[in-house]
Amino acid sequence: MSNQAKKAERFRALHRGKKALVLPNAWDVPSARVFEEAGFPAVATSSAGIMVSLGYPDGEKMPLRELAAAVGRIASRLSLPLSADIVSGYGTTPRAVVSTVRRMLENGAIGINLEDMDHSGHGLCPDALQVQKIEAIRRLGESMHVPLVINARTDALRQAPGSERARLREAIRRSVAYRDAGADCVYPMGLTDADSIATFVDALRCPVNVMIRKGLPPVATLEKLGVKRVSFGPSASYAAFGLLQRASREVLTRGTYRFLLDGAITFDELNQLAVARHPGKASQG
Amino acid sequence: MSNQAKKAERFRALHRGKKALVLPNAWDVPSARVFEEAGFPAVATSSAGIMVSLGYPDGEKMPLRELAAAVGRIASRLSLPLSADIVSGYGTTPRAVVSTVRRMLENGAIGINLEDMDHSGHGLCPDALQVQKIEAIRRLGESMHVPLVINARTDALRQAPGSERARLREAIRRSVAYRDAGADCVYPMGLTDADSIATFVDALRCPVNVMIRKGLPPVATLEKLGVKRVSFGPSASYAAFGLLQRASREVLTRGTYRFLLDGAITFDELNQLAVARHPGKASQG
Repeated sequence: MSNQAKKAERFRALHRGKKALVLPNAWDVPSARVFEEAGFPAVATSSAGIMVSLGYPDGEKMPLRELAAAVGRIASRLSLPLSADIVSGYGTTPRAVVSTVRRMLENGAIGINLEDMDHSGHGLCPDALQVQKIEAIRRLGESMHVPLVINARTDALRQAPGSERARLREAIRRSVAYRDAGADCVYPMGLTDADSIATFVDALRCPVNVMIRKGLPPVATLEKLGVKRVSFGPSASYAAFGLLQRASREVLTRGTYRFLLDGAITFDELNQLAVARHPGKASQG
Repeated sequence: MSNQAKKAERFRALHRGKKALVLPNAWDVPSARVFEEAGFPAVATSSAGIMVSLGYPDGEKMPLRELAAAVGRIASRLSLPLSADIVSGYGTTPRAVVSTVRRMLENGAIGINLEDMDHSGHGLCPDALQVQKIEAIRRLGESMHVPLVINARTDALRQAPGSERARLREAIRRSVAYRDAGADCVYPMGLTDADSIATFVDALRCPVNVMIRKGLPPVATLEKLGVKRVSFGPSASYAAFGLLQRASREVLTRGTYRFLLDGAITFDELNQLAVARHPGKASQG
C-alpha cells in the first residue's frame, strides 16, 4: 500500500473512534504546520482561507490551477494526512469534478470536501447529479488506489425552500443519498444547535461533520451527540485577521505593541513552519 | 507623473513629517488589506513572512519569480503605496540587484528594502560594493521614472566584528555611506535601546527605520528620539501564528473555541480582504 493510501486509511479511521476528530483548516504552509506541531492528527484546507490569502474571494473565481498548487505546497511540507476543500468541484459534470479531484490527489491530498451548491446558478445542485459526482469520485479513488475520504457537504439548511424544519428534512434527505453514493462523512453546513445535531446524527448513522462557529456546543457535548468530525472552517483565518486588526488599532492609537508581542512565536519558530517536520513523510510538492 | 510615481513621492513624504511613519509588514493579500482598512498610510512586505507562507525559510532560497509574484499579488489588491523587501537583492552584483528591483517596480512596488548581508557567504557585503548597488538602484528609478524609496538596511550591529560599541560605529559608518549613495532611509537591524537610537539618529541626520521587537520604546518616545520610520518586520506573522498555537491548545485540551471566536472577523469581512478597496488605485497585478 502506498504512503498516500496509508494516510487515507489513517484519516478514515479517525472518523470511526470514540472521540470526535477535531480537524483544523489551514490556508497556507505555516498555518498547516502550526496545527501539525500542536498535535492534531490531520489537517484540512479552507477554500475561503486559501482563496482570500491569494487575492480571490471565496467561491470558484480562483483558477483551479492556483488552488491545486496551494494544496500541493501545503501537502509537500506536511507529514499529516491532508484533506482538500474543492468547493463544488470546479465543474457541473461528474467528469469535470473527477478531474478536479484527480489533481488534488496528484498533489498529495487524501480526502476532499465537496459542496452541493451550483456556483454558476447560485442554487442547490440537483441531488441526483450530486450523487453521480460522488459515485464518480469513489470510482476514481479505486482506480488511483487512493481510498480517499469524501466529505459531502450540503447547503440545504440555508438554500432549500420552506421552513427551518423543511430545510432540515431536505438536508437529511440529501445527506442520506450522498452517504449511500459513497461519501464517508456528511457535512450539513450551518448545523449548530444540539437538538438539530441530535436529529441529524440519528437519521444518518454515519460520520457527521459540524463546523466551529458561535453557538456550537463544546467538543465534549458534540461527542455525546454522536458527532465524529468537528472542523474549524475558516475560523482560524477570521481569528488571525481579527488579531491583526487589534494590533493595528493599538499601534496607531496608542503607539504600543502589546498585541504584536504578547504570545508571539520567534523568528526561528516561524522559519521551522516553512519546512517539513518529517521530510520523508511529506507528500510530493 | 504616473500613478506609481505619485505613490513613490507620497511614500517618501511620509518619512519627512513630524510624526514617525508606522509601517506594517504584510505577507499576503489579506494581511496587507487589513492594514489598509485599519488606516495605515502605506504597507511594506516582510520577506520572512512571504517566504514562510509559501513554504520557504527566510533568506534567498525562494525563487525570485515567486517572490516577485507575491509582491505583485499584494500590490494588485492594495490602493496604498507598497514597499517590497528584497532581502539582499538576489544577486551579488549591482546588475543582478538592479534586475531584481526592476521586477518589483514592474509588479507595482514603489520602494524597496535592501540588506547588506551576503547570503551566499553569510557575512557582510563589502561596503563599497553595497554603495554601488544603491547607486545603481537610484539610477534605475530615474530611468524608469519611478522615484522609489530606498531603505538601506545594515546588519553590522549583529555581523560586524568587535565590541558592541565597535559594531554600532560600523553600522553608523556603513549607513552614512548608504545615505550618501542615495538611500532615502537607513535601517540598522537590531537597534532597540534609546541611547543607541539617539546616537544613531544624531550621526545620520536622515530618516532612520527601527523595527518593532521586545524592548523597543513606544512610538511617542521614538519620535522624540528623531526616528522617522517604525516597521513591523515579521512581528505580525509571529503574533498571528502565536494565536493559532493558543487556539489549537485550547480546542485540543479543553474542547472550547474562545481563541478562535473572540474578536474574530466575519466571512464577509474576510472576503472583502481579497479585493481592492479602490480598484482604480491598485497597482497592476
